Amino acid sequence: MRDWGGRLPTGDEAEILEAIRRRAHLPVGRGLALGIGDDCAIYRPRGAREDLLFTTDLLLEDVHFRRQTHPPEALGHKALARGLSDIAAMGGVPRFCLLSLAAGAGADRRWIDRFYDGLFRLARATGAPLVGGDLARAAQTACDIVVCGAVPRGTALRRDGARAGHAIYVSGRLGGSALGLETGTGKAWARHLRPQPRLALGVFLRERIGASAAMDLSDGISLDLHRMALASGLEAAIEPPPRFPGASPGQALHGGEDYELLFTAGPRITVPARFETIPLTRIGVMRRGQPGAVYLSGQPLPALGYDHFRGSR
Amino acid sequence: MRDWGGRLPTGDEAEILEAIRRRAHLPVGRGLALGIGDDCAIYRPRGAREDLLFTTDLLLEDVHFRRQTHPPEALGHKALARGLSDIAAMGGVPRFCLLSLAAGAGADRRWIDRFYDGLFRLARATGAPLVGGDLARAAQTACDIVVCGAVPRGTALRRDGARAGHAIYVSGRLGGSALGLETGTGKAWARHLRPQPRLALGVFLRERIGASAAMDLSDGISLDLHRMALASGLEAAIEPPPRFPGASPGQALHGGEDYELLFTAGPRITVPARFETIPLTRIGVMRRGQPGAVYLSGQPLPALGYDHFRGSR
Repeated sequence: MRDWGGRLPTGDEAEILEAIRRRAHLPVGRGLALGIGDDCAIYRPRGAREDLLFTTDLLLEDVHFRRQTHPPEALGHKALARGLSDIAAMGGVPRFCLLSLAAGAGADRRWIDRFYDGLFRLARATGAPLVGGDLARAAQTACDIVVCGAVPRGTALRRDGARAGHAIYVSGRLGGSALGLETGTGKAWARHLRPQPRLALGVFLRERIGASAAMDLSDGISLDLHRMALASGLEAAIEPPPRFPGASPGQALHGGEDYELLFTAGPRITVPARFETIPLTRIGVMRRGQPGAVYLSGQPLPALGYDHFRGSR
Repeated sequence: MRDWGGRLPTGDEAEILEAIRRRAHLPVGRGLALGIGDDCAIYRPRGAREDLLFTTDLLLEDVHFRRQTHPPEALGHKALARGLSDIAAMGGVPRFCLLSLAAGAGADRRWIDRFYDGLFRLARATGAPLVGGDLARAAQTACDIVVCGAVPRGTALRRDGARAGHAIYVSGRLGGSALGLETGTGKAWARHLRPQPRLALGVFLRERIGASAAMDLSDGISLDLHRMALASGLEAAIEPPPRFPGASPGQALHGGEDYELLFTAGPRITVPARFETIPLTRIGVMRRGQPGAVYLSGQPLPALGYDHFRGSR
């Protein structure tokens, strides 16, 4: 998420990222299948049957969490979950992770142990062993997760693969994380604290559905769908997405950190109503038009999702 | 570096890292050749002829640098150089990098551009294109570099490969970075600001010399040699290492961030006095004894190098 979503255009963040992307000068033919501009970078090792996916995600005190309200186990879980969600978005299977942790003033030895409790639990459950990282002291806690995943060569789901006429789907119900952040209680708060990366769903979309595009919902569907539409050179027309119980329409449209999957599929593909216990809902269609434009029930939908460099939320 | 140097034992940092390492539960036979405990983790992609090396390194405002004194270009350079130095330590060739940047209050758009100027310049010079990362706003600037490198399968230089009777060598002259940090001027300051990762030397040590162990000097030779000796189950006996012009004996022994290479070679191996313009100096020998103990001119040498969790330097 916010993984240098390449051509995302709103606000200062997009502008900075675009400038970085333009300057990155990726060499061709050295094993790099995809650089800056999607949930993960794709690397093709020489002679290997698999493509490797790489993503990094920051989790910062007083930006993404507050020490007073977020238990360390939940932060360890969430740090890894954010990276795994990017792997899920491309249909990948996790291979390993690395974690860099700058432990802030309030993060004592016990805090650090509990942080790793949460991280190791999710790492074991998802097959993403921790193989390295870095550790330092700092004024505020900051961590950066690196996750490597794998897909059979050439099969990674990307955000630029949607075509005109393809249906738009979303997994789960949206706005739960934003609601939880507001209320601090109940299932919504649990959802905010311990998001579940949709790894099995991602593999299902790649292997069984043949989704044409996919990405994870980290910054709110208004912004993330805009990014997908822009990457695919299309505009998107949707109806209101399913809402997490109690979430407002605004939370469902603009709230971040749901970590559900947004995907598209060709018009002849049958997408089931559920995958395991997760509802899969058709919310609209991609069509020719202004690349990146999103319409909700026929009205333009502003991309109000989370942008670090706009400073609003 | 400080890359969870595995079994390093001094101070609280080592204790925390050891606890993390014990809990990491690395699965066997899933392509992981080496986890926590060296400069890089090693991953063996299925069917590939190469092993991939991964390292992450934090660079933190008011810990590793101050905004008032460190130009942003130098920080971009240094962030990447730290990661590349870990790749060099294992004899690797860089493949790509990712960067996560939390831009602090003082890091405006111009600062960010200049930071990337420094990073891109070194990335181009060393063949390590930037393929992704993360970007966020925070109170203080923090960045985390991820570098991937490669070596032919099974040939990575490790810190645990030294044997009794193997000679100990160091590249370059030590203490320059610590001296530069103290004086803020001249060649030592340039050395502190823009360390040169010893990539070509690392490949030379792996391909031509057949070094038995290698690591980079990031935290001071007193601590880093201790780590290598401990990893190899030996003790080390050395004479004073060559000093950077003007550096004190203490700076040469305990000063961090020289990013030279420390390596060992069997007694029958001839190591040239220079590689390109870099002096290679035999400073001592590994021997049976107390694992991890280091002796300087016959006297025990305390491991006073940099430890984040001891808080001393």
